[in-house]
Amino acid sequence: MQAKALPGFRDFYPEDLALRSHIFATWRAVAACYGFEEYDGPPLEALELYTQKSGEEIVGQLYHFRDKGDREVALRPEMTPTLARMVGARAQALRKPIRWFAIPQVFRYERQQRGRLREHFQLNMDIIGEPSAAADAEVIAAAVDVLRAFGLGSTEVRVRLSDRRVLAAALGRAGVSDGELDGVLAALDKLDRSREYAVELIGRALGGDAGRVDGVMALVASLDVPRELLATAEAAPLNDCIDRLGAMGLGGFVDVDFRIVRGLAYYTGIVFELFDAGRALRAICGGGRYDQLLRQVSGVDLPCVGFGMGDVVLAELLKDSAFERSAPRRLDAFLVAVSGDDERAVLGLAHALRDRGVAVEYALRSGSVRRQLELAAARGAPRAVILGPDERASGMAVVRDLAGGSEARVPLTSVEQGRFD
Amino acid sequence: MQAKALPGFRDFYPEDLALRSHIFATWRAVAACYGFEEYDGPPLEALELYTQKSGEEIVGQLYHFRDKGDREVALRPEMTPTLARMVGARAQALRKPIRWFAIPQVFRYERQQRGRLREHFQLNMDIIGEPSAAADAEVIAAAVDVLRAFGLGSTEVRVRLSDRRVLAAALGRAGVSDGELDGVLAALDKLDRSREYAVELIGRALGGDAGRVDGVMALVASLDVPRELLATAEAAPLNDCIDRLGAMGLGGFVDVDFRIVRGLAYYTGIVFELFDAGRALRAICGGGRYDQLLRQVSGVDLPCVGFGMGDVVLAELLKDSAFERSAPRRLDAFLVAVSGDDERAVLGLAHALRDRGVAVEYALRSGSVRRQLELAAARGAPRAVILGPDERASGMAVVRDLAGGSEARVPLTSVEQGRFD
Repeated sequence: MQAKALPGFRDFYPEDLALRSHIFATWRAVAACYGFEEYDGPPLEALELYTQKSGEEIVGQLYHFRDKGDREVALRPEMTPTLARMVGARAQALRKPIRWFAIPQVFRYERQQRGRLREHFQLNMDIIGEPSAAADAEVIAAAVDVLRAFGLGSTEVRVRLSDRRVLAAALGRAGVSDGELDGVLAALDKLDRSREYAVELIGRALGGDAGRVDGVMALVASLDVPRELLATAEAAPLNDCIDRLGAMGLGGFVDVDFRIVRGLAYYTGIVFELFDAGRALRAICGGGRYDQLLRQVSGVDLPCVGFGMGDVVLAELLKDSAFERSAPRRLDAFLVAVSGDDERAVLGLAHALRDRGVAVEYALRSGSVRRQLELAAARGAPRAVILGPDERASGMAVVRDLAGGSEARVPLTSVEQGRFD
Repeated sequence: MQAKALPGFRDFYPEDLALRSHIFATWRAVAACYGFEEYDGPPLEALELYTQKSGEEIVGQLYHFRDKGDREVALRPEMTPTLARMVGARAQALRKPIRWFAIPQVFRYERQQRGRLREHFQLNMDIIGEPSAAADAEVIAAAVDVLRAFGLGSTEVRVRLSDRRVLAAALGRAGVSDGELDGVLAALDKLDRSREYAVELIGRALGGDAGRVDGVMALVASLDVPRELLATAEAAPLNDCIDRLGAMGLGGFVDVDFRIVRGLAYYTGIVFELFDAGRALRAICGGGRYDQLLRQVSGVDLPCVGFGMGDVVLAELLKDSAFERSAPRRLDAFLVAVSGDDERAVLGLAHALRDRGVAVEYALRSGSVRRQLELAAARGAPRAVILGPDERASGMAVVRDLAGGSEARVPLTSVEQGRFD
């Protein structure tokens, strides 16, 4: 007997699913306001879609296997390769810029630590076909507005914003060659977790050249004051992006932080992460510009910028929110049959009301009126509609307010139309 | 380069996803009217959840593999085992009857024929904890009402309704023993596809006893006139179910058809399928009572009845519906900057409108007003809001009707609140 879900996988009981639906609905509402269209792809893809281009870190964490048709396949660990594949297949026909979003469930086989999950849902928003920082600002604004839609302000969440091009140029001036750059960036991405480990990785990337390692670490130390790098020529797109976020009234959410690198190798420009202001949780959201990936996956040369926002950290952040405290009401009325002879009338009324979009239930098992009223209260119905022989003879129903206990006689013709008083 | 999804898997481009969303929204609306709560489980489960109890036919069609933690796992081929597991784990705490629905994506590795898919989405509705035919009638009514919500009537879709208990008793009278019953029922399930093959299977199930095979086939021939079996004692729940569907005004959808068996071994009572009236497509929906499964999976003894309705046959049926003809409108307005100096004002206005839930876009690249209006039309916006230096100076905006071509000057304070005339 199998009692539990696999480790790292979640069961969504109705109370859990209500929160998930609330998150999805908010994601969809903000995406719609930004003119984004929803798409989706398969949760299972050819393994090579991920192994070819996505960097080694992901490959070791895939759920992959050989299917009965002898194909190497994998559960999607992220949505971007699917997006690149789908856009690539119709690149000619799709009008640019493409503004698409999706809410895929994604899967990673991570060694479980501190309740870390192996699946989560992720809002993905991407703009494809526009290289300017206007697109970057647009997706960052959307990410911030999602959090604002959940009631979070700039004292609760922060955008950490950087541009790999600015950091790459600075690293170049510090003596890092083009060939060494990816290794150094990957190392800098580990700085937050362990400075020692990052230094070791930088040493490895620079062939053990202690002088240049010192140069890179001096640059890293200077990143606390970003003003200098913001004045470099390479920072023009980043400054444009910041200016646009300011014009949208979102400047107060943004901190420039050149230590943000983002682990994935495919980012090519502006990168960003959203965090809770207290930094108690992992990143809420991460994204950036990836102008080469589409060409690598599909052979079509189109610039892209986008982000992914997971449901798990977000739910953590919303734990004490108003939604969590107030369960949504499910039922409009519970119908009660006084005797067995009234059951057919209850069925007819139930169906008439449901046809009008009114949510109703009735007892599936015959029982006393008291028993049925108890069930009505247990189901959270605000009122009971009671049908007995007398009521049916006079064309009336008794409507009982289950919170207050008051009762009123209402014509059946009104009740049938969903008017209960 | 990977251009296509795996065979049998679908990419949902925005126009495809719009139809899927329409189907899901309708499913959810009807389920809500019936007081059902949504749940979900993991798409990946322990293999034994399926191999132990679900009948051999499913097992050979699973996507299954050994994960990195050496667990045998499988993509879910159906939702019912997960439902049984989840309910079993909280059987004490959950108030009965449980009325739950889910919309899982399910996966089967079937040999591909005539474009048959290897994944689809499936509405599952189940009532758990109520053994009477009232529950069966309730879920059948919900299935019919889903199709009615899509605009389909009794001339377009039909319910084929049976009860395994009635058929089993009749087969018993025809000489089939309890031990032979499952084999004969599985054979009868193939009758629609090939009579010859079904006869061969019945022969096998009855140990080649030609006399009893003839008896079973005589019974099969008599099933065309169900009146006789409806008068047997075993038909009491079925008659109650039919009576209740009649009281709900849905009697006109129902055909009693004792040839409906349903392939899955776990059904124990009333079974039903919904078909297009012309029988041009596969079943739209199938379900029934499965009173033993929960005990087998979780050790908790609770009666269940439910159905699954896939999105693929349904979408086929809706192909020419009104929804397909009218694409939903996405944008409320497209904002146009006359000069580069107006771009920041456009950004501010865009953000003010989005904050009110108004869906707006603007050009991410600077360009002539004509170019921006072309883009606005291409994105399907009903109107353009044009901001130039003169407008800004006078606190006005030009609102252009993109269908008619007429223009009006509207105070910016109105436009900011989403009032465009």
